[in-house]
Amino acid sequence: MNTADCYAVIFTSTLSRSVAGYAEEADAIEALARQQPGFLGFESVRDESLGISISYWRSEADIRAWRHNSRHQLAQKRGRQQWYQNYHIRICRVERDYQFQQESD
Amino acid sequence: MNTADCYAVIFTSTLSRSVAGYAEEADAIEALARQQPGFLGFESVRDESLGISISYWRSEADIRAWRHNSRHQLAQKRGRQQWYQNYHIRICRVERDYQFQQESD
Repeated sequence: MNTADCYAVIFTSTLSRSVAGYAEEADAIEALARQQPGFLGFESVRDESLGISISYWRSEADIRAWRHNSRHQLAQKRGRQQWYQNYHIRICRVERDYQFQQESD
Repeated sequence: MNTADCYAVIFTSTLSRSVAGYAEEADAIEALARQQPGFLGFESVRDESLGISISYWRSEADIRAWRHNSRHQLAQKRGRQQWYQNYHIRICRVERDYQFQQESD
């Protein structure tokens, strides 16, 4: 995924103790995000204490449209009511990127 | 950590099969990063397939200085030779940020 000159949304979160339904909803929302205009990519990792998810977008307008998607807004509301102890969202402009790939043996 | 109007370095990586010494070196480099001018914060999660680490900095000049730190450069070299199958570094400007914190029960 080439992401120079694009936008990244960094979402870091800690879950509450009420995680029933969370994994299924996260999968559904990821699938929906992948269909949005301007979606470029998604990376996500979670351990016991912290989750970091990053989505990449062509423009800030695309991020805004996704943020206001009605199905996504339902998920955000449920997230605040039930699943998340806390979260932090950062909207970032990707200024430069570098890649390294090991040569095969 | 308030990070509006700062810079984020997103480091996503996949490890090779040769991870001897990696965890100790990652801890040492994180401790060194925390002492650098302009360092604002660090978040990191790894699962079996992917690692995402994000460091936050006051300015691009601070990121450049850290990138060229001689001890850090040794670690970068060893990372390419031994530990990483691949990695992707993105230098980002944090344009906006939002936080949510669950009220205590």
